[in-house]
Amino acid sequence: MAERECRLVEAFSGRRERDVRRSDEARWRRPQTGPGAGVEVLRGPAQVMFLANAWTGAVFCLALCVADWRYGAYGLGGAALGTGAARLLGVARDRVETGLEGFNSCLVALCFAVFLDAGRLSTVLLAAAGCAVVTVVTAAVVRLLRVWDLPPLTLPYCLLAGAVTVAAPGFRRIWPHGDSLAALPRAASGPTFLRPEEVWRAFFRNVSQVFFLDRWYVGALLLAGVFLASRVAGLVACCGSATGILTAWALGAPAARIADGTMGCNAVLVALALCGVFLEATRATLLYALLGAATATAVTPAVAGLLAPAGGHAFTWPFVLTTFGFLLAARSFPRLTGRGPGPGEAAPPWRVSAPVPSA
Amino acid sequence: MAERECRLVEAFSGRRERDVRRSDEARWRRPQTGPGAGVEVLRGPAQVMFLANAWTGAVFCLALCVADWRYGAYGLGGAALGTGAARLLGVARDRVETGLEGFNSCLVALCFAVFLDAGRLSTVLLAAAGCAVVTVVTAAVVRLLRVWDLPPLTLPYCLLAGAVTVAAPGFRRIWPHGDSLAALPRAASGPTFLRPEEVWRAFFRNVSQVFFLDRWYVGALLLAGVFLASRVAGLVACCGSATGILTAWALGAPAARIADGTMGCNAVLVALALCGVFLEATRATLLYALLGAATATAVTPAVAGLLAPAGGHAFTWPFVLTTFGFLLAARSFPRLTGRGPGPGEAAPPWRVSAPVPSA
Amino acid sequence: MAERECRLVEAFSGRRERDVRRSDEARWRRPQTGPGAGVEVLRGPAQVMFLANAWTGAVFCLALCVADWRYGAYGLGGAALGTGAARLLGVARDRVETGLEGFNSCLVALCFAVFLDAGRLSTVLLAAAGCAVVTVVTAAVVRLLRVWDLPPLTLPYCLLAGAVTVAAPGFRRIWPHGDSLAALPRAASGPTFLRPEEVWRAFFRNVSQVFFLDRWYVGALLLAGVFLASRVAGLVACCGSATGILTAWALGAPAARIADGTMGCNAVLVALALCGVFLEATRATLLYALLGAATATAVTPAVAGLLAPAGGHAFTWPFVLTTFGFLLAARSFPRLTGRGPGPGEAAPPWRVSAPVPSA
Repeated sequence: MAERECRLVEAFSGRRERDVRRSDEARWRRPQTGPGAGVEVLRGPAQVMFLANAWTGAVFCLALCVADWRYGAYGLGGAALGTGAARLLGVARDRVETGLEGFNSCLVALCFAVFLDAGRLSTVLLAAAGCAVVTVVTAAVVRLLRVWDLPPLTLPYCLLAGAVTVAAPGFRRIWPHGDSLAALPRAASGPTFLRPEEVWRAFFRNVSQVFFLDRWYVGALLLAGVFLASRVAGLVACCGSATGILTAWALGAPAARIADGTMGCNAVLVALALCGVFLEATRATLLYALLGAATATAVTPAVAGLLAPAGGHAFTWPFVLTTFGFLLAARSFPRLTGRGPGPGEAAPPWRVSAPVPSA
Repeated sequence: MAERECRLVEAFSGRRERDVRRSDEARWRRPQTGPGAGVEVLRGPAQVMFLANAWTGAVFCLALCVADWRYGAYGLGGAALGTGAARLLGVARDRVETGLEGFNSCLVALCFAVFLDAGRLSTVLLAAAGCAVVTVVTAAVVRLLRVWDLPPLTLPYCLLAGAVTVAAPGFRRIWPHGDSLAALPRAASGPTFLRPEEVWRAFFRNVSQVFFLDRWYVGALLLAGVFLASRVAGLVACCGSATGILTAWALGAPAARIADGTMGCNAVLVALALCGVFLEATRATLLYALLGAATATAVTPAVAGLLAPAGGHAFTWPFVLTTFGFLLAARSFPRLTGRGPGPGEAAPPWRVSAPVPSA
Repeated sequence: MAERECRLVEAFSGRRERDVRRSDEARWRRPQTGPGAGVEVLRGPAQVMFLANAWTGAVFCLALCVADWRYGAYGLGGAALGTGAARLLGVARDRVETGLEGFNSCLVALCFAVFLDAGRLSTVLLAAAGCAVVTVVTAAVVRLLRVWDLPPLTLPYCLLAGAVTVAAPGFRRIWPHGDSLAALPRAASGPTFLRPEEVWRAFFRNVSQVFFLDRWYVGALLLAGVFLASRVAGLVACCGSATGILTAWALGAPAARIADGTMGCNAVLVALALCGVFLEATRATLLYALLGAATATAVTPAVAGLLAPAGGHAFTWPFVLTTFGFLLAARSFPRLTGRGPGPGEAAPPWRVSAPVPSA
């Protein structure tokens, strides 16, 4: 068991550096100095999908711009501010260089742009302050989870964005809408029958909703960015999205909620995290990851229901909670993790992005 | 302090194996192979009350059948599925053999039967899926709490059942009732005077509500099952139930809520856990356990109030939270734990069931 | 990094004993026996502001009496009961002697007096029981947080007072008001323009609201008590209060809520904790502490909104959560903590009060 855990820990951290080097040496790496600032920043958005690939980050930013150029600016600006704040405070270099200090701030800034009013000066200032605070929150979460050897995932973003969306109606200079959104959750209504065009739109919107956008072509572009970095990751993301749709349909979620991607976006992230990023990508872990994706889909209305009376939003809480649970549990299931490749075998080059604590 | 903690840890884990062997050798134990599958499964329901006794488990299943034969089927089927899933995933044998992988799945399946509609196919399928997921959740919780040497108790069940009851109204194929149950908590109303027949009904219903049933004869049968395994455990359970009634009455809970057993069911479990299972059964720990039982009773409306706006249910959250707190604190109170028998003395044979993490 | 952490840990615990001795030898310390019981008890209220100074505690009690003599009695009685319960249960002597076992029980008793009816017998009995239970909760929280080397702060009080305020409407003998206070949070309304006399009243009320009192002269008296123990602590508290007002105004909080001190009371505590108590008082940590104070102010309506539907109250939750986050994160920021004095230099004598776990 101890040996197996060692391997798991290695899957989290050990090979990352080597792979980063291997995949980046040709294009990015400058001797002694690490990647340039632009690469670090572009890796931020890519790390939302666990990819340390700057090209992927560029495609992601393009996808945001396709929805609204201001979203692209917020996303990239957030990643830049978060990375800069981490560098200023002296966070460990490997975290900064692989973009692990940029993806939470990217999501925070983007979230403020979408949920408040992207065009107001107050939103710009708040997003900038949020990027500074989320750097502190990230450092705290990394320390908090080191006890269990768990990666921070998007927990810092969930905490901060959650606090701001609940607190915002209490501040008149921030809140652009009239009244608070707080309401008691109600039972689902509306038809549960899914039409074919709803299915394929849901398939892509599950990906775009990771960035709070409900346009299918944004999702298609994001998925293309994932495939650009790794074919395996792209296939796993597709499996996750399909599992999300299937689970939500089987449980009887309203078709409208499946079609807009809000039911399945956590399934995509869980599938990626559990098959290839933090566990080896094998047939056994794929099944496990899809069980996790189904669980996250079922848990989504629970999180939404718990936060609704306060006016909160589910964000990626279901992904975070499900992935923590399934990662912790995996260490007690030797039949699952034991099937992976031995310590001598090569890790897939796209598993370079594990957002893992480092000293 | 370190030595004392060792002893406490030993109380959690060390003597368990020996006692299991001792009490089971005559009847159950087959050499080399562990107990038969039937015994493992029957120990699941018994472990809800911390007892690794298959006869007790059989009595518990009988009690469920007395309320409704389907409840018995769900409970036993849940224990079987959870135990099977744990075996399939390769969970440590001692956890599976003592029934520790069966009690959370037993409660999950039973909870679905009671809160959703026991007769629908969707409930059966959901309960089966829930038993698989709760095995993963149990493994995660065991890892999570190992940091503090705490047992998982019914936390996995509380997490899963809580998520499903909040999420269920969002899924039209699952939810049999019309609208969501979410509502703002309201101040208590109704008389607080307890009539004698309400007192003794509450006494037994406090036990039956552990399994969500509010019939006093089910509680009496369950209590008989506890006495079957251990006279001390039975007496402690009675003290816990009485403390729950007394506390709720003293604080001014409405008589109707005391009489249906929802105020006191956590007190029974807390008393059992703190006097005899995880701490030695002494006069000092009995007082400590009854303080815990009173605390859990007072905390029950708090948990219910926190979850009410989301449509959630208190389940055994008050028991879990109170027991974690009192167990952690006990290690700082040498006057409390120091009075127990030394390491050389025998542990009572019914303390065989400590649901404790094992590698 | 490891060395730096050592130093940080030392800042938490190591020098405390020495400083306690140094500052107390002249007046308080009786050889072999520790301080007298009166000093221990008076240090309880002072520890709410992280000060182990009995004179400060006496001034704090006087301030409570100025508001209402019964508040003073509850506060001092709570500190005495908590300290006594800890002594009875055999909690480590250094925790008891420095008043660390008295400040949570002081706040619990005072909170009951303010939120329930101070004149009723039921409130007195409940406060006494609460002081016993909070001693257990404190011991549990100390153990829980030892994993991260974090101090318990007012978390035990927040947990217990939070549970009681949510549960109280469910008990007819306790709840003096008519109906539950549970309500969905609403968007802020009212003017955001601050008049000068509102500013200076808010400045002092931010301090008095730490003890749930909204009279400015109580705050002034409390602040005088802080200055009595340490000039640096007093200045930091002033900076924290100013930051709270500025942040709340900049975000657009209603002037009425700023003026009554509920927006800024957490900022005072966060500033004290992060600049001088758990981190060295330097220019860098002062900036960090003020960022923390601003964060706590922004988080306050979030906590209030999350608890409002259950009828809960924010208490010092924002302070506790923000301080935990910023303390954990500080260990990853060498540029921040590295500027402090080296291990050989003297710590300021008023940093004697770190409420830190001890065995």
